[in-house]
Amino acid sequence: MNIAIIGLGLIGGSIGIRLKQTHFFDKIIGVEKNETHQKKALQLGLVDEIQPLSEAINNSKVIVLTVPVDTILNLLPEIMEHIDEQVVIDMGSTKSIILERIKDHPKRGRYVAAHPMTGTEYSGPDAALAGLFENKMMVYVEAFRSDEDAFELADALTEQLAMKTSFMTAEEHDMHTAYVSHISHLTSFALALTVLEKEKSQGRIFELAGSGFESTVRLAKSSPDMWTPIFKQNRANVLEVLEEHIKQLQHIYQKIDQEDYPAVHKWIKKSNKIKRIIK
Amino acid sequence: MNIAIIGLGLIGGSIGIRLKQTHFFDKIIGVEKNETHQKKALQLGLVDEIQPLSEAINNSKVIVLTVPVDTILNLLPEIMEHIDEQVVIDMGSTKSIILERIKDHPKRGRYVAAHPMTGTEYSGPDAALAGLFENKMMVYVEAFRSDEDAFELADALTEQLAMKTSFMTAEEHDMHTAYVSHISHLTSFALALTVLEKEKSQGRIFELAGSGFESTVRLAKSSPDMWTPIFKQNRANVLEVLEEHIKQLQHIYQKIDQEDYPAVHKWIKKSNKIKRIIK
Repeated sequence: MNIAIIGLGLIGGSIGIRLKQTHFFDKIIGVEKNETHQKKALQLGLVDEIQPLSEAINNSKVIVLTVPVDTILNLLPEIMEHIDEQVVIDMGSTKSIILERIKDHPKRGRYVAAHPMTGTEYSGPDAALAGLFENKMMVYVEAFRSDEDAFELADALTEQLAMKTSFMTAEEHDMHTAYVSHISHLTSFALALTVLEKEKSQGRIFELAGSGFESTVRLAKSSPDMWTPIFKQNRANVLEVLEEHIKQLQHIYQKIDQEDYPAVHKWIKKSNKIKRIIK
Repeated sequence: MNIAIIGLGLIGGSIGIRLKQTHFFDKIIGVEKNETHQKKALQLGLVDEIQPLSEAINNSKVIVLTVPVDTILNLLPEIMEHIDEQVVIDMGSTKSIILERIKDHPKRGRYVAAHPMTGTEYSGPDAALAGLFENKMMVYVEAFRSDEDAFELADALTEQLAMKTSFMTAEEHDMHTAYVSHISHLTSFALALTVLEKEKSQGRIFELAGSGFESTVRLAKSSPDMWTPIFKQNRANVLEVLEEHIKQLQHIYQKIDQEDYPAVHKWIKKSNKIKRIIK
């Protein structure tokens, strides 16, 4: 049994490198339009060979999409046209719009919507890590709409990646990821820009940057090609959480401005409850 | 030659544990009003003994203040009254107000203003780490106002901690730290609260929280007793950077709201310049 991985970036490359270790699939076929990435993926041993899309579809039992969500939206219906009994899994960070696009497709049952909750701020085949998925959460979205054998095969892949699992509706998924992933990226981008702007007048501003700053801005290294379509496809939830986050910042601006320090202390103490979540 | 460390939390405790390794000082005396912390510090071997403040001042050549900045503001002038040829070093995160308070003191030359750019989100003696300072930056503020021998002794301590050094005015220091440290904490507190609020209606919201979320909110575990006085003493700079950060977030809210995705892409790409700073 072969697997085709469409898109050999951080996620696709990491799946490849991990599957090469476990030998669950006979052949790991990569599909990648960027020629530099093709060469790099072969050189790093992320996949066994590179094939054109149509050939890869014909030669594989499992097809995994690990491309940006705007590409998934266009590519998924096209791939569904060309499959027979194959299983197609998308690993995108948004789900409602993609599931809506595919909902009436005659082959809908062959498709499994999944989202591995892992990643780093780096992209491309160079960023691939064999241990990227270990003990992380694979979220299945509307799994009940997939054929039983299709879901079982997708879940076997998840097991190969040594992941935990969770089940959600598309609506839940997109709202939850807006709150625990998309907003973190937006605040990082904004924070990086705030300080980069200041650097123009204050050359030495980064000299004192320590580990706290680094940890809050590291996500600002993330790719615009990946993140712009995520914000587009999850627009309503992203705007909701952004609005609430801005309100929190305006609240604390006001309290510091009014020199209401007991309120500042209380606000910080309340946020400390995050200790319960993050050990 | 003995050293007195006033305040045995993360910074004070870490100085103690490191100095016990290097044997530069004969005795490391701790001053700490919290009895549980006193016991813990002795048990962990952070200091050789605990003494009352006045005794510790008399028995030491070097006195280091590692307490929250509001306590420094009150304690520093009091300590200056009781020293003879000792050197007093404060390690607070704000400088302008503290230096203003002490500027006309007859013993001003015996005081060295310093700020080690390091830390973790944890506090108390349990949080102490011998390697906390290694290769991090010690910022000296208005070092030219200290007696030469006083500065040399402070710098010998910095060397014991294996730190790099940087020199600034109080104004520069307070503005720079607002941009690369204080704002990171404010965004973390706000982000934690945004998601904790949502948890009330969406119980499972943290289930998908991954390493990106964790890295942007970990600072929200920081102590309100330490941070409230920092925001108070650095109010003007903190309000400035907070205002600029809110503007960045409002800008991107507007672009996503207007569905101007080329502008979103451009904004993210611009923020990617942070790669130049953070490797």
